[in-house]
Amino acid sequence: MKRLGKKTVALTSEPHIIETSSIVGKKEGEGPLAKYFDFILEDEYWGEKSFEKTEIKILKENLNKVLQKAKKTPEDINYILAGDLLNQCISSSYAVRESEIPFIGLYGACSTMVESLAIGSMLVDGGFADNIIAMTSSHFCSAERQFRFPLEQGTQRTPTAQWTVTGSGAAIVSTEQKGPKITHVTIGQVVDMGIKDANNMGAAMAPAAADTIYSHFNETGRDPSYYDLIVTGDLGIIGGEILKDILLKNDINIKGRYNDCGILMFDSKAQDTHAGGSGCGCCGSVFAGYLYNKLQQKELNKILLVATGALMSPTAIQQGEAIEGIAHAIAIEN
Amino acid sequence: MKRLGKKTVALTSEPHIIETSSIVGKKEGEGPLAKYFDFILEDEYWGEKSFEKTEIKILKENLNKVLQKAKKTPEDINYILAGDLLNQCISSSYAVRESEIPFIGLYGACSTMVESLAIGSMLVDGGFADNIIAMTSSHFCSAERQFRFPLEQGTQRTPTAQWTVTGSGAAIVSTEQKGPKITHVTIGQVVDMGIKDANNMGAAMAPAAADTIYSHFNETGRDPSYYDLIVTGDLGIIGGEILKDILLKNDINIKGRYNDCGILMFDSKAQDTHAGGSGCGCCGSVFAGYLYNKLQQKELNKILLVATGALMSPTAIQQGEAIEGIAHAIAIEN
Repeated sequence: MKRLGKKTVALTSEPHIIETSSIVGKKEGEGPLAKYFDFILEDEYWGEKSFEKTEIKILKENLNKVLQKAKKTPEDINYILAGDLLNQCISSSYAVRESEIPFIGLYGACSTMVESLAIGSMLVDGGFADNIIAMTSSHFCSAERQFRFPLEQGTQRTPTAQWTVTGSGAAIVSTEQKGPKITHVTIGQVVDMGIKDANNMGAAMAPAAADTIYSHFNETGRDPSYYDLIVTGDLGIIGGEILKDILLKNDINIKGRYNDCGILMFDSKAQDTHAGGSGCGCCGSVFAGYLYNKLQQKELNKILLVATGALMSPTAIQQGEAIEGIAHAIAIEN
Repeated sequence: MKRLGKKTVALTSEPHIIETSSIVGKKEGEGPLAKYFDFILEDEYWGEKSFEKTEIKILKENLNKVLQKAKKTPEDINYILAGDLLNQCISSSYAVRESEIPFIGLYGACSTMVESLAIGSMLVDGGFADNIIAMTSSHFCSAERQFRFPLEQGTQRTPTAQWTVTGSGAAIVSTEQKGPKITHVTIGQVVDMGIKDANNMGAAMAPAAADTIYSHFNETGRDPSYYDLIVTGDLGIIGGEILKDILLKNDINIKGRYNDCGILMFDSKAQDTHAGGSGCGCCGSVFAGYLYNKLQQKELNKILLVATGALMSPTAIQQGEAIEGIAHAIAIEN
């Protein structure tokens, strides 16, 4: 470990992401990334009686799947780090209850996939663990009900709205020497730019992403050309444009090397997802499915993965507060 | 760092808790620990228009207070680790937004004070940070509204019910060599024993506390006589009795060395708090106020602090799920 600045540490042992697993919903399985996911659901319920129970099942089965794929047992895992969007992070805590693995609960909204990989890789780098599992999930139906309107109401969605991904990503970070390495961690700060529109989360998160990316380049001495891809968690189409603009004003040009998990997940026009995908499971499954595959195939060799979270509370918004954003970044390299 | 077993690590650099700060509500300020708290509110609102905004203010002011007491600026702090009971952990994220300190959001319900101290002290021990702040909060009125019934309804409380503490605890863990040291961290697993009564959280959390304490003794080779005090987060009177019984069946006798933050906080009969205090702010303020003082005064020299969380979701309970428990422990020694 070497501290490079206020927000960034270089992980000198370079923990490896030895395996990932992804499960997504039916709609996500009809999108452009379908072939990269391990399992695609046939409907919203997967045999469960509520959307929340379905989300718990998705995360639990994804935990089992990543263990199987890596040929590991729960006894091999020192810590699970997980969080999700549901109140009290119930998907995570119910998903792990039979595993008997020490559990570190996180809350970072849609930044959780990278928050869990970041903290987990620091624990591996610091010698506290040989293997950790980082994971998260979201479900379109449980998220809409909790954060916006019941689906039965048929509320029209605004052009800036994003579509919460039904899905989960899980990854094992290990001292074993195989797979891509996590070389740098940049932990972000909470940024509040006064956005109050729960249907424009990209705008709420973009300033936080810009702050984290700016800090990463500033503290590592790298510039955008170092990376094959700089990929944000789920700013979507509108947030992504705002991010590029903010960075350009700070003399950082990421055009041509930038993409976003929320943009990658859906064919926005054909699938009517407006500004793109969102939710913890968006960055989770796009990373664990598509991006990890591209890293393994050496089609990508150096990526900066920046998961962004809108720390959005319906109660706080009703009380006049703005939606805060946060973003954490990890550099993943072959 | 030395790994002692599945759940416990010894922190070889022994990070120090160099300062703490506590703020509590009016009722807590009328209890037996009043003189140990840094600041006592005069009413439930502290000049704010909602209980949620009050809770945010409590945590924000406590963050400022612990920095002042330690003569530190935000620039000195590498990470804040925080979480709370409110949906989307809004107390924590709004409390830190002006600090510009890298933020690691946690969700561990009432186990958060020790979860944040545990992860934070591992980051310090691993060389990732010189100073971290661990903090949490809760508020009786915001918690009752969110988890049980609106206060205006005047619902009668059951004998097993606990009283959510209005308060906050904050602590700075540092490489500086002053104050008591965190010598061991035991990270717990989720335990679900099928308890479904939201008014009997002590019973839901006691098995998790027993599992963590049992693992701690088993993995460190210590026994209860090593500690001056084994103190749980907030099992309360009923959960505390269950804990002692479970441990005794496993040949661990903690009687005479055991107490609980929820029992310590209130005069249960005079203050009509039934089974005792609860909430993230209970363990938070009792540790940051009373226990830290006793450690500084050398009246206590070795304590095992075990914060317990009931990962209770009203939605999940309505859907027939049980209340899971989790407990994390740290050994604090002079």
